[in-house]
Amino acid sequence: MTSPDYILTIRCRDTIGIVAAVSTALAASQAFIAESSHFGDPETRLFFMRTVFRPTGEVVRTLEDFRKALAPVARRFGMELALYAADSRTRVLLAVSKHGHCLNHLLHQWHSGELPLDVVGVVSNHEDMRRLVEWYGLPYHYLPMSDGKDRQESRFREAIASSGAELTVLARYMQVLSDEMCRHLEGRCINIHHSFLPSFKGAKPYHQAYARGVKVVGATAHYVTSDLDEGPIIEQETHRVSHAFDADAFVRNGKDMENVVLSRAVRWHAEHRVMLNGSRTVVFQ
Amino acid sequence: MTSPDYILTIRCRDTIGIVAAVSTALAASQAFIAESSHFGDPETRLFFMRTVFRPTGEVVRTLEDFRKALAPVARRFGMELALYAADSRTRVLLAVSKHGHCLNHLLHQWHSGELPLDVVGVVSNHEDMRRLVEWYGLPYHYLPMSDGKDRQESRFREAIASSGAELTVLARYMQVLSDEMCRHLEGRCINIHHSFLPSFKGAKPYHQAYARGVKVVGATAHYVTSDLDEGPIIEQETHRVSHAFDADAFVRNGKDMENVVLSRAVRWHAEHRVMLNGSRTVVFQ
Amino acid sequence: MTSPDYILTIRCRDTIGIVAAVSTALAASQAFIAESSHFGDPETRLFFMRTVFRPTGEVVRTLEDFRKALAPVARRFGMELALYAADSRTRVLLAVSKHGHCLNHLLHQWHSGELPLDVVGVVSNHEDMRRLVEWYGLPYHYLPMSDGKDRQESRFREAIASSGAELTVLARYMQVLSDEMCRHLEGRCINIHHSFLPSFKGAKPYHQAYARGVKVVGATAHYVTSDLDEGPIIEQETHRVSHAFDADAFVRNGKDMENVVLSRAVRWHAEHRVMLNGSRTVVFQ
Amino acid sequence: MTSPDYILTIRCRDTIGIVAAVSTALAASQAFIAESSHFGDPETRLFFMRTVFRPTGEVVRTLEDFRKALAPVARRFGMELALYAADSRTRVLLAVSKHGHCLNHLLHQWHSGELPLDVVGVVSNHEDMRRLVEWYGLPYHYLPMSDGKDRQESRFREAIASSGAELTVLARYMQVLSDEMCRHLEGRCINIHHSFLPSFKGAKPYHQAYARGVKVVGATAHYVTSDLDEGPIIEQETHRVSHAFDADAFVRNGKDMENVVLSRAVRWHAEHRVMLNGSRTVVFQ
Repeated sequence: MTSPDYILTIRCRDTIGIVAAVSTALAASQAFIAESSHFGDPETRLFFMRTVFRPTGEVVRTLEDFRKALAPVARRFGMELALYAADSRTRVLLAVSKHGHCLNHLLHQWHSGELPLDVVGVVSNHEDMRRLVEWYGLPYHYLPMSDGKDRQESRFREAIASSGAELTVLARYMQVLSDEMCRHLEGRCINIHHSFLPSFKGAKPYHQAYARGVKVVGATAHYVTSDLDEGPIIEQETHRVSHAFDADAFVRNGKDMENVVLSRAVRWHAEHRVMLNGSRTVVFQ
Repeated sequence: MTSPDYILTIRCRDTIGIVAAVSTALAASQAFIAESSHFGDPETRLFFMRTVFRPTGEVVRTLEDFRKALAPVARRFGMELALYAADSRTRVLLAVSKHGHCLNHLLHQWHSGELPLDVVGVVSNHEDMRRLVEWYGLPYHYLPMSDGKDRQESRFREAIASSGAELTVLARYMQVLSDEMCRHLEGRCINIHHSFLPSFKGAKPYHQAYARGVKVVGATAHYVTSDLDEGPIIEQETHRVSHAFDADAFVRNGKDMENVVLSRAVRWHAEHRVMLNGSRTVVFQ
Repeated sequence: MTSPDYILTIRCRDTIGIVAAVSTALAASQAFIAESSHFGDPETRLFFMRTVFRPTGEVVRTLEDFRKALAPVARRFGMELALYAADSRTRVLLAVSKHGHCLNHLLHQWHSGELPLDVVGVVSNHEDMRRLVEWYGLPYHYLPMSDGKDRQESRFREAIASSGAELTVLARYMQVLSDEMCRHLEGRCINIHHSFLPSFKGAKPYHQAYARGVKVVGATAHYVTSDLDEGPIIEQETHRVSHAFDADAFVRNGKDMENVVLSRAVRWHAEHRVMLNGSRTVVFQ
Repeated sequence: MTSPDYILTIRCRDTIGIVAAVSTALAASQAFIAESSHFGDPETRLFFMRTVFRPTGEVVRTLEDFRKALAPVARRFGMELALYAADSRTRVLLAVSKHGHCLNHLLHQWHSGELPLDVVGVVSNHEDMRRLVEWYGLPYHYLPMSDGKDRQESRFREAIASSGAELTVLARYMQVLSDEMCRHLEGRCINIHHSFLPSFKGAKPYHQAYARGVKVVGATAHYVTSDLDEGPIIEQETHRVSHAFDADAFVRNGKDMENVVLSRAVRWHAEHRVMLNGSRTVVFQ
């Protein structure tokens, strides 16, 4: 019987001997390192590590075996340490309003096996996307704002809880979350903003970009925080525009970029490649 | 004897018959159109045109001949109309402080015949770049800020006037121009800002970008106005960065982009490809 | 009653007076030019023009009126001249094998009104995409290769003819078309090739790219000709890769780019922005 | 007294325990790891590592101390292991023909302290760049081809040897090196090719690109091998072009890209970030 790869992520204060301790513990358990990245931030003095390893040897060790083997190291360095089976899939709930392009892109990628995650449902404050979502055999949680924001968000949280979602993705969900909701979802909610943040925060960013006369526009995927459009950035991408583009052309051309950026950010989160470093992120590619 | 190509630029209120009138006048004078672009802005209702044409026929017409031939058309439509010989070169004065990369790039391109313009001198508030500039056989106007800003800017304006410069290029000139100076140079002064405007206006943009944790940085060439870093944008370019870049790496990687963006903007201005459209630009490529 | 905009495209031998004649004829018919581009290729000495205009005045002229008004001009210059109502939609037939990402992307864009065309059906040599296509209410032409290539292509041509398709899009259709089929579809069949042509022609381009160790990969949309992967290029886009990407990662990351490139090429063709210039294209953006 | 950082690079067959052994040896010598990357190629089964570390503790260890500490590890795993002081600068000889843009760019970056290397001279088969090179106070080795290729290359090798150059950079040196010369410089000679390899190998790549009608062009920096334009690629970058660019515009726009790509490749080599992996490279950024 073959065992899956395991993914190890670590965050702790940076000091001498971390890599030695971790890699020695892994080698002692006959783990072959398939992929590994680390980064020490000289400013925050935090150390980040992501390692993909493979059990070898006659006795195939389990996740629990490795957890035990690493526990003394974690204690010694005060680590936030997480271990995942590489084939265990992050459970993801999507949220959308009326613009379905990101939703459609993520659902197709998930359905064709390109995204290593399980979509467990879709939340929306509109009915527009129900038919698409149900074609994919997914529950559609219609949560209209007419119920009042408090009540709507409370039902949103219930949808997250009952579906067991570990990550919520705002795939062009055009409602500002309350501070309470933001705190509740800290580090496990990704939003796509249709501008090259920090330019053009808030509403109608493409129209702002058009008015400013920029020659390049962008899209940004970031973790949601209670500071609107100020959360830690995971990924950005840009695209050239010209004077001949009106605001509608900005919008139209931007959609492809939003798809790409959000899809990358969600994939990287699901592969445990993204780690919070204060108001910034470390992304191990 | 062969005649040079001519460049015609037009700006006027958009209406029916402009292209017909201009192209008919040109055809009547035996002008062969080598390149032509026009753009009507549906928002400002302004019309912009740039045409490169070539006199043909037995009698080779001069710039003055074409000016006369187009005068009735210009009057009829209330045009701002300009005519240039394509081989007449814009006279350019460069300004720099201590970071010489953009200066060095522009001087090399000019000297090797790649930029269709004449550099007529360099202004600086420091002495650092004198040796480089004098190697190119150009006058170096050392205008220290210690003389007081008013006096320094007055000498700057004298350098522009006496050199006959039609365009001033702030090639990493790290002084904020006074409102008066900005107005004096309106539409004929290009600055390179080392960020993807409107993000990170003001000082130390790469450090701001690092602190915000962006994944893409940029550079912006724009016309100088009295609103700091708010002038009409001519060109922008972006470049990926990662969590492993510190602020110094942002700065270092940004320089190549600044070179490219400023060089393009200056070339396009010198080729009469850039036209002001309110707070935005039309750039005919 | 408002009239739609009209799109005029012209191709002819370049000479003096073309723009004058066309724009004078349009102005005489009270046409307001909303958008116009032309290009004279100094090498092939061909002239290309695309103009979007709007009838004005009390008597609203029809497409037929403009056709008549332009006929003498077309005759005089020996023009290939085409006129379209901007709101008439190109009929498009899609072809796919097993990789559905481009198909899904185009169908979503079409269905949500972002692509100015009518999808009239999908051809495939496999059954995999039937369910998706039928969800969109489109006919699915299952044309297996087991019938023999001749017979299969004959049925393919029938599907094109019976659906009235003006454009065929090979959206990851993994069969090489016969020379006869290529000639039959000349100038009206667009393929997406998953490499940055002319690099990595033929099969498994991402694997070729991985083996060569390139640092940037690309995708190319081109018109199909009987020279495999040698047809006139409409659009290309590139994407950075690193040593840490294996061939599968090349494939996965490439898909987003294929979506974007094919979607742009199809849109531009449908908007009559693409014109053939020998083995190259003119693309008016 | 502060000690400089050290850079360690390793290449060996991949197996269990490499990172553990290396990092344990470093930790035992009180080395603080500032930056580290490793990569195991699942195809070639080779392991690559680059680590930047800093001696700490009361007894500051020297390069020689670390060499001794790591020797048993290197023996055990059969490693190619190299150790550098981070402030020791690679000695670089540049070669150029008549196009001076890359030369000028590298010299400026070196002179302003942006490139962590020592330029020790310039070789050229023409006299054109002598004045520029001598302004920088560097020896100019004029080696005309009229002496015969054998004799010219022999003098080229002497210039390398006598200057102590560790890296030779062909900065638009338009001569094909002999097989013998290529073998002599294997892994220590970088060339800039003005196309997006493997497209457009050989002469006049921009003209080839123009003729093919591509919409994106590129530049490639690679190690020189006896297979012309087939050496391991270090870096590539691309740039959009349009139908309105003639071959000269391809050339002109390409130069900025060549500067950027070659400068990055040379920097990364000098920082010991590039390692050969068969016909490909590993580049640790």
